[in-house]
Amino acid sequence: MDEIKVVPYIPDEDYDNPAMVVDFYEFTMANCLFLHGFKNTTLVFDMFFRKNPDNMGYSISAGQRKLTRFLLNYHFNEQDIRWLRTKGMSEEFCEYLRTYKWKGDMYALPEGTVCYPHVQMVRIECDLVGAILIETYLLQTMNFHSLITTKATRVTGLNTHTPRSVMEFGTRRAQGESAGNDGAYAAVLGGCIGTANCLAEMKYGSEVKAVGTVAHSFIEFFPTEFDAFKAFADTYPDSVSLLLDTYNIMESGLPNLIKLDDYLIEKYPNDPNRRVKSARIDSGDLARGSKRLRKALDAAGKPYIKLVASNGLDERKIANMELYEHAHFDSYGVGENLITSASDPVFGGVYKLVAVKLPDGTYQPKMKCSDSASKAIIPGKKMPWRLYDENGQAQCDLIAMDGEVIEAGKPVKMVNLDPDAIERTITITPTKVKRLLVPHILNGELAIELPGMAEKKAYIAKQLTEETWETELRIEMPHKHYVNMTPAVAECRAKMYSELHGGKV
Amino acid sequence: MDEIKVVPYIPDEDYDNPAMVVDFYEFTMANCLFLHGFKNTTLVFDMFFRKNPDNMGYSISAGQRKLTRFLLNYHFNEQDIRWLRTKGMSEEFCEYLRTYKWKGDMYALPEGTVCYPHVQMVRIECDLVGAILIETYLLQTMNFHSLITTKATRVTGLNTHTPRSVMEFGTRRAQGESAGNDGAYAAVLGGCIGTANCLAEMKYGSEVKAVGTVAHSFIEFFPTEFDAFKAFADTYPDSVSLLLDTYNIMESGLPNLIKLDDYLIEKYPNDPNRRVKSARIDSGDLARGSKRLRKALDAAGKPYIKLVASNGLDERKIANMELYEHAHFDSYGVGENLITSASDPVFGGVYKLVAVKLPDGTYQPKMKCSDSASKAIIPGKKMPWRLYDENGQAQCDLIAMDGEVIEAGKPVKMVNLDPDAIERTITITPTKVKRLLVPHILNGELAIELPGMAEKKAYIAKQLTEETWETELRIEMPHKHYVNMTPAVAECRAKMYSELHGGKV
Repeated sequence: MDEIKVVPYIPDEDYDNPAMVVDFYEFTMANCLFLHGFKNTTLVFDMFFRKNPDNMGYSISAGQRKLTRFLLNYHFNEQDIRWLRTKGMSEEFCEYLRTYKWKGDMYALPEGTVCYPHVQMVRIECDLVGAILIETYLLQTMNFHSLITTKATRVTGLNTHTPRSVMEFGTRRAQGESAGNDGAYAAVLGGCIGTANCLAEMKYGSEVKAVGTVAHSFIEFFPTEFDAFKAFADTYPDSVSLLLDTYNIMESGLPNLIKLDDYLIEKYPNDPNRRVKSARIDSGDLARGSKRLRKALDAAGKPYIKLVASNGLDERKIANMELYEHAHFDSYGVGENLITSASDPVFGGVYKLVAVKLPDGTYQPKMKCSDSASKAIIPGKKMPWRLYDENGQAQCDLIAMDGEVIEAGKPVKMVNLDPDAIERTITITPTKVKRLLVPHILNGELAIELPGMAEKKAYIAKQLTEETWETELRIEMPHKHYVNMTPAVAECRAKMYSELHGGKV
Repeated sequence: MDEIKVVPYIPDEDYDNPAMVVDFYEFTMANCLFLHGFKNTTLVFDMFFRKNPDNMGYSISAGQRKLTRFLLNYHFNEQDIRWLRTKGMSEEFCEYLRTYKWKGDMYALPEGTVCYPHVQMVRIECDLVGAILIETYLLQTMNFHSLITTKATRVTGLNTHTPRSVMEFGTRRAQGESAGNDGAYAAVLGGCIGTANCLAEMKYGSEVKAVGTVAHSFIEFFPTEFDAFKAFADTYPDSVSLLLDTYNIMESGLPNLIKLDDYLIEKYPNDPNRRVKSARIDSGDLARGSKRLRKALDAAGKPYIKLVASNGLDERKIANMELYEHAHFDSYGVGENLITSASDPVFGGVYKLVAVKLPDGTYQPKMKCSDSASKAIIPGKKMPWRLYDENGQAQCDLIAMDGEVIEAGKPVKMVNLDPDAIERTITITPTKVKRLLVPHILNGELAIELPGMAEKKAYIAKQLTEETWETELRIEMPHKHYVNMTPAVAECRAKMYSELHGGKV
């Protein structure tokens, strides 16, 4: 390694370049391979995951929009270079990074695609340095967005075909600022109607709408609860939504709310928009509270006042209230359990080398295989397909070599990926087939028109409602989606496993 | 509300002002109270939590450094004001925010303080607008830092007085970019020796050191495993640390590692620093692997090669390997389970109005009390104390009114906060006492010299080693730290609960 010029680096808490969201070993590896003359070698990496969160039967793939922006803006600053020199990177490598632009290909599932273990979410083909250094950011972004979007589809009931109105309220318990912002985006993508988080709306636009009314402190500030209600209604007569559980829901919150609505009727007799819109409860026995409140409000001639619940909710608590107690709020605020996917807070996506491009243009498959046959990765440059049955539902996914063509209406022979399957090979005749990975970036240039939020939300809803077997969507013991390999992929994998793990490399 | 000038707001994914990490209802409330003439009213809020993560017996308070920086830099930009106008905020309020500076007081536990449920971590006293609008960011920062620092003290074994060498490897599974960066800081604060995350070192300095060697892809890239090992050692002869489980740990990784060390001995016969330093395994049966590898390396005359483990580790898995299998790695890389605190990913800190300052300078206590007596908050402007026994260990915490003085060597009468306690009042004579909250910001100005990382790490270690009862630190069924109130606090709380919840407010 050449002598390098090391000037002191001064830490800066405000500094931010997402290209430096890198596990240090990526630089160590890239520098070493660069020095060994491989900088123009092209590598193929797959990003995929091995297990759906919470042992559910599906996941929703998200983060593509942010990842695309990241790769298009990928660069290193002087500050990065200065720091890398202090960490022992070679002068040549640092010089190379100084003007490095990301010129690779990114193929990915469209954001919002229902997806399954072992099927690629993203495929990267790029020169060695650009393929290696993006790993950490790629995984962080895809993992977190997919985690929260998937959880949100369950909280909003899209998976059980019982959609409900949910607001994302978790910013205060989010795991840091970007988790709050990106999490709000992902929650709305997964079906939420809004978020409490202002910065999220400022970043992502009014489809990630910031909503909310008051906290307990507002009520407490005033001499009486009614004073607080009245102050709010005088300021925002068109959006009167209040909180009933500051002191005593039935004895104080409810009568004051009725009194306030009567006050509004008197003040604005001819403006039916200026009425109490909704009332929220945030503590105690929510199910019982909702039923008592609904009854009392209806009896008072106020069926138009909607009820909102919050306080430690998640998809199971809401479903249990609805199913077993027939409690039905008009909407829900869901905080910490959604924004952190508290029931399973890790989406375990991995990024694995699967092929090296040879000088003749062919791809040499690569494979990590030490731990177990089922965890051994699937080598080669590949393209996954989705095969649909006669009902238009996705019957299975099929991992093919890139370039293999699968045709609708023709029998397709497949090797089962699940080591527990009895039938090693099956043949089906799909009614429709679709290549799953779509080019997002080609040679460093944007190759897709990224859809807007409404379009992506509709795409998710359509897949969950029409294209996914209900048995895969259920919460308990879901059916495991069939994922298969073409015979070419299966043979390549078996041969390499035997050579590499069996042999001494 | 006056007519407001609304100009269009254009969303910007790159925009960031942490002052806008706000739940929208804070703006709704602040605008309303502002319009009602209360802008110069001073409020007191407490930030505290109700439950230690994972039902452990303690937490570590962290995030103060970041929160202090946030408050000192608090401001709104034109872009913020423009957006707020589109959201119905009044012209006067927007004008007020345009030049708003945060002039409040922030009292807090010093970063790294061992802390317990119900005892304040932060106390804010500020004009109404500044007290209300900071809630979301304050909670997010304190919650996340405390969560990860607390988890890290358990992963690094500080709580069980069995410290071990742990590297933070979780950035790829962190819940977004700031979770990766702040999480690395918090993990190192909680005892980790380094992080994989480069940007964390760039931000927080070399005490949050970026570490790491190679991934499986590096090994796979080369024709043989030995070629890869050799390439790495030729580039970094002073820090040869490799990965054994790409193909087959015992049949391939181990013999190649021994061969590499022999190669280094031959190449650098007189430089004992240029030897294999360590070998990592990342899959399979780690405990069995470590014992077989240790034996084989010792037999080959290479006891100096250290062993490193990674792969889904957390404090329980590591402890079980060590305790029941006598497997002892020299260090551990811990990823997703630390950076997300996967076993309990939410630190449920809350921020509650406890007092309003009256024109005569006294404080009117405030209380939210609807849900249950045990969850009813503790009203009033207060100062918590820690009382130490004759062994120098913290015997209990005592929540006093601000201004009450507790003296060492004198009997202190206290009311138990735990509703399950049989003895409602107890009296002890502490050997030493300490006010727990320290001024960090006074009238908007920094009032403390923030300690460096080394000092904070030593502070945490000292508390866990010398000042905290071991019974509170154990993993299973820990003793619950005694938290008491002075009679003045208890009387205020009981009286208000009866008036507010019993009465109709």
